[in-house]
Amino acid sequence: MSDIIERLFQVIQDRRTADPLNSYVASLQQAGLNRILEKVEEESVEVVTAAKDAVISQDTSDVVKETADLWFHSLVMLDCLGETPTSIFTELERRFGISGIAEKQSRKN
Amino acid sequence: MSDIIERLFQVIQDRRTADPLNSYVASLQQAGLNRILEKVEEESVEVVTAAKDAVISQDTSDVVKETADLWFHSLVMLDCLGETPTSIFTELERRFGISGIAEKQSRKN
Amino acid sequence: MSDIIERLFQVIQDRRTADPLNSYVASLQQAGLNRILEKVEEESVEVVTAAKDAVISQDTSDVVKETADLWFHSLVMLDCLGETPTSIFTELERRFGISGIAEKQSRKN
Amino acid sequence: MSDIIERLFQVIQDRRTADPLNSYVASLQQAGLNRILEKVEEESVEVVTAAKDAVISQDTSDVVKETADLWFHSLVMLDCLGETPTSIFTELERRFGISGIAEKQSRKN
Repeated sequence: MSDIIERLFQVIQDRRTADPLNSYVASLQQAGLNRILEKVEEESVEVVTAAKDAVISQDTSDVVKETADLWFHSLVMLDCLGETPTSIFTELERRFGISGIAEKQSRKN
Repeated sequence: MSDIIERLFQVIQDRRTADPLNSYVASLQQAGLNRILEKVEEESVEVVTAAKDAVISQDTSDVVKETADLWFHSLVMLDCLGETPTSIFTELERRFGISGIAEKQSRKN
Repeated sequence: MSDIIERLFQVIQDRRTADPLNSYVASLQQAGLNRILEKVEEESVEVVTAAKDAVISQDTSDVVKETADLWFHSLVMLDCLGETPTSIFTELERRFGISGIAEKQSRKN
Repeated sequence: MSDIIERLFQVIQDRRTADPLNSYVASLQQAGLNRILEKVEEESVEVVTAAKDAVISQDTSDVVKETADLWFHSLVMLDCLGETPTSIFTELERRFGISGIAEKQSRKN
């Protein structure tokens, strides 16, 4: 199921050149990098307020939605810069992969 | 390869109760939710400055590193709240999955 | 001229209970603290992108506008929590005031 | 008392070229604009978490400290870009000044 990230990124790439009136992704790409970065930040602070509220309400559903929004807008940003989620996976693999130092440290812990 | 997210989350869960002196994850969990949320925001603004710099330098390597940091700290936050990346994948699937409205809209575009 | 902060805060307090349809401040207060905090963050990232752009364009006019927006929304947040800019001035005075340690350090520098 | 902003800005300007080992301001200016912008964002999210905590604790003292930090780092950022708080005051005056449209709207409200 984790391949939803790649499938979602494919959707984002397909929509990039769609009609901005019909596609949110296309409207973001047309608005440009600053607007996309502002959305990334907007979603990240919504994660923060949702997380603080979840401690009180014991309901994490908004945290899930806002984190999904944050990851989604991260992907739009990557596409805007000609990057891909594969690069992020490779970087995380490099740091935390099975044969990596981090994993060895983890086994020590 | 996208299952790195699940594997990384497993590492994060395993380290949660490690010695904070030996494990960055354990030190974050011990510092508490506010510290974790501040790291999420810190990484998200580092994504923003790295993205702006990438437009000038035509080098996206820092964007990749900072986005990896942002996703990593999102996962630590999810674990802190008893949530999982599976919930995020389910939410993205619900919105953008093959049989979802978003995908239909995408095909229209 | 720096008393514009106090005068602006007076305007913010006066408008708090105005008709949300006619007053931006009233609409923010009606939307609640989370919305106000999201605006604080939104403006702070707009400061960041404007500052990065200013380095290239050598034009700081957007930085000035976005910093004004950030301070304005900080004031709305203070009012929402029953606080005042006087508390902020007192805190800055305490840290950096003429008789304060910071100023002494400054003289050493 | 609101002239603390101008007096603080004077301190910031005086320290700009101090020894980074002795002056926090000088160490920020030496680290450069990205580091300063990251601090602005860091402080703005600390305002957000402090504000959320204040609703529960009914204690706004951390909100006051974090807002002071946010304004302080905004001033360091302005100095880094060759701007001044006077420009921010002028912008706020233009928008909300006694003879301005905003004030007239305020009177209507």
